[in-house]
Amino acid sequence: MAEGADVLVVGAGLAGLTAARDLVAAGRSVLVLEARDRVGGRIVNEDIGDGKIVEMGGQWAGPTQDRLLALAADLDVATFPTYDTGKNVLHFNGKRGTYSGAIPRISPLVLADVGQAQARLEALARKIPTDAPWTAPNAGRLDAQTFETWIRHHTATKSARTLLTLGAEAVFAAEPGDLSMLHVLFYSRSGDSFQRLIDTTGGAQQDRFVGGSALIAERLGTLLGDIIRLDAPVSRIAVAGDKVTATTTAGQFECRQIIVTAPPLLAGRIDYEPALPHWREQLTQRTPMGSVIKCQVIYDEPFWRADGLSGQATGDGEGSRVVFDNSPRDGSPGILLAFLEGDEARRLGREPLEVRRGAVLDSLVRYFGPRAAQPERYLERDWQQEKWSGGCYGTLFGPNVWTRYGHALREPVGPIHWAGTETASRWCGYMDGAVRSGGRTAAEVLARLP
Amino acid sequence: MAEGADVLVVGAGLAGLTAARDLVAAGRSVLVLEARDRVGGRIVNEDIGDGKIVEMGGQWAGPTQDRLLALAADLDVATFPTYDTGKNVLHFNGKRGTYSGAIPRISPLVLADVGQAQARLEALARKIPTDAPWTAPNAGRLDAQTFETWIRHHTATKSARTLLTLGAEAVFAAEPGDLSMLHVLFYSRSGDSFQRLIDTTGGAQQDRFVGGSALIAERLGTLLGDIIRLDAPVSRIAVAGDKVTATTTAGQFECRQIIVTAPPLLAGRIDYEPALPHWREQLTQRTPMGSVIKCQVIYDEPFWRADGLSGQATGDGEGSRVVFDNSPRDGSPGILLAFLEGDEARRLGREPLEVRRGAVLDSLVRYFGPRAAQPERYLERDWQQEKWSGGCYGTLFGPNVWTRYGHALREPVGPIHWAGTETASRWCGYMDGAVRSGGRTAAEVLARLP
Repeated sequence: MAEGADVLVVGAGLAGLTAARDLVAAGRSVLVLEARDRVGGRIVNEDIGDGKIVEMGGQWAGPTQDRLLALAADLDVATFPTYDTGKNVLHFNGKRGTYSGAIPRISPLVLADVGQAQARLEALARKIPTDAPWTAPNAGRLDAQTFETWIRHHTATKSARTLLTLGAEAVFAAEPGDLSMLHVLFYSRSGDSFQRLIDTTGGAQQDRFVGGSALIAERLGTLLGDIIRLDAPVSRIAVAGDKVTATTTAGQFECRQIIVTAPPLLAGRIDYEPALPHWREQLTQRTPMGSVIKCQVIYDEPFWRADGLSGQATGDGEGSRVVFDNSPRDGSPGILLAFLEGDEARRLGREPLEVRRGAVLDSLVRYFGPRAAQPERYLERDWQQEKWSGGCYGTLFGPNVWTRYGHALREPVGPIHWAGTETASRWCGYMDGAVRSGGRTAAEVLARLP
Repeated sequence: MAEGADVLVVGAGLAGLTAARDLVAAGRSVLVLEARDRVGGRIVNEDIGDGKIVEMGGQWAGPTQDRLLALAADLDVATFPTYDTGKNVLHFNGKRGTYSGAIPRISPLVLADVGQAQARLEALARKIPTDAPWTAPNAGRLDAQTFETWIRHHTATKSARTLLTLGAEAVFAAEPGDLSMLHVLFYSRSGDSFQRLIDTTGGAQQDRFVGGSALIAERLGTLLGDIIRLDAPVSRIAVAGDKVTATTTAGQFECRQIIVTAPPLLAGRIDYEPALPHWREQLTQRTPMGSVIKCQVIYDEPFWRADGLSGQATGDGEGSRVVFDNSPRDGSPGILLAFLEGDEARRLGREPLEVRRGAVLDSLVRYFGPRAAQPERYLERDWQQEKWSGGCYGTLFGPNVWTRYGHALREPVGPIHWAGTETASRWCGYMDGAVRSGGRTAAEVLARLP
């Protein structure tokens, strides 16, 4: 006998947990089927001893991420500001420099070049209707080109192109050539602006969660209790009459409505009976995941602070091209968070651990000096290897996907509803978008249930 | 008890059948596991009575497709020339014209514009090493832009852009914005030149098979006999020690080496234990299939021939934008083959049959006059709906896939080998490429078996 509920939720990340919470609050019976042996999806803590953790997945919150912040507050998960005091480091064209504020000390010509391109980008982004990017002015033209192409047309200097590339890598864990220009504009608008996506204070990296972002998922999971079934990857969803059956390695489950929170790529790997409409199917063929390895480099103390440095660094060399101070709130131990993103994740992801660790430390030495070569510990998580994510931070939309298949992203197929941060029109790709998508699909389902 | 063989072959299309034939010829035991209830994969005949058929999938052969032609000859499947006598029709900018030979009667300015762009394209294509397109001169730059972007830069007139778009649709069943420019060059070179891909006589549409292309697969299938297991979709491939186990709905099968012939997209939906390396996994995330509906419109006779027309037509309007005379060798009945490709397949694929049929017939009336509105029969196959293909004609490589992931296309993973036309460096995407890939992987496997 299959176990049953009014609603099945596939995935116990923030989207699925939020949807389940709303449905339970409305008096509905719910079962949450999770492929992994833990809740949280793309957010996960790792214990580093002394009651402290590092976050190996999504971790930050920022202004206007209201739903995420409200959820955290509900669950008594407090925030604290990301360390953002002192000078930032830029290692560029073989030279190291430090700067205060948002503007690096590089050639005014390059700064003007980047500034002009970014101003154009922000102006275009403001015109994107985030509920339907394919209806934006000039959507066809914008979607038929890569961000790389757009950058080449709107910059005059190689250095400006490199800086914009670093921005794309940091935001998408991908290269500008991987991305549709329309997607870059949509994504920027969805998080207010490109500037907000890359900023620390005032931006998407402004705040951190005391105890780690995964605490939000864990506490939600505890509240929901045994309606969450771990180690239950859904391989098949069959709809017959008004009954939906989900098949997992942990048995079959039945419901009236089902919410799938997996990113479109992984949702597309579920076997549907009857088959999904071909526009939904072909959408899932065109939604690859980004390429990132998140590295946490742990030192006895945040030595860079004594040098007047914020711990934030960026550069155009090998190894990590985006670094943050990720020390616990009390500043002990000192932790540098070093991202390998896009091409560097792909390249170094093929190397043995020691080579990769060496490349990361070499880049940290370029930014922060020789003490960076001697960490106490090096931790990493290669999201390219995570079967139940397929990559991180999120889904990449290449050219001609939004304009041809965007309509299928959220459109329910009979009793099957699509959640997950990729379906959010506000803060798409972020934890806040995941929370929003959970709320939206719960409301969709409640409106349909008798 | 799992059934066993030296080698398992996943897929009974031309690639799998060819591989199995070579392995059996070398004295190895083989089992072929096919998801569908028939052999042939993307080639399939449909009976139209009187001992005649139409081909609802791949159908043509052309010069230099030597492996396909040799295989057909071995199996006593004869060829005959595609009907290519009389004038072609072009319906363009609202006007209908006819022309002889390859050059339509349109403005010399437009012809020069298209000709110059195509000459550039052909020159670039000649520089692509088809075994490793990512090593081509300027590969990074070419791969970071779409074909649409390249066309815009290298044409001066809107009409030239439209003509090149029609060419892309006909060759790829996709829009120029869907495709990496490097892929267009690779693909052209893989079939000698872009011109060869679009030509009838002298090109990839030159010849047809007596009895239909599917006869090749059917005869190979008959020769191989009961080593082919139909209705046996492989959902899991597990490697442990020197044993490989494939799980299907028709039971488990064991072998030492396995050849997967499914296109990368579908190969990526198999569950592997242990997981594939992330570069192979992320490749399969970035290989969507094309969008095509193949329509066969059957008349009592090929009336267009009496009007001095070849039955070949192209145009920039709605409905079918590429049409061929697809009548049987004896000219009875008269059949127009009308393709819906790229955006038109996506758009009309969402409409009811009657709307789609109406759009196809309207376009045929524009090309061939009012008699085209009264067919005896209308047959169609929407390859977007084919679960075990995911689309046709083949895999689309968008920007930054060849340069970042191309190395993983053929590279075996332990005892797992990758075949299928997408893995061919010669005639990639065509039946000939499938045959070549079968031969290559059979040789790979034989070299590994003790």
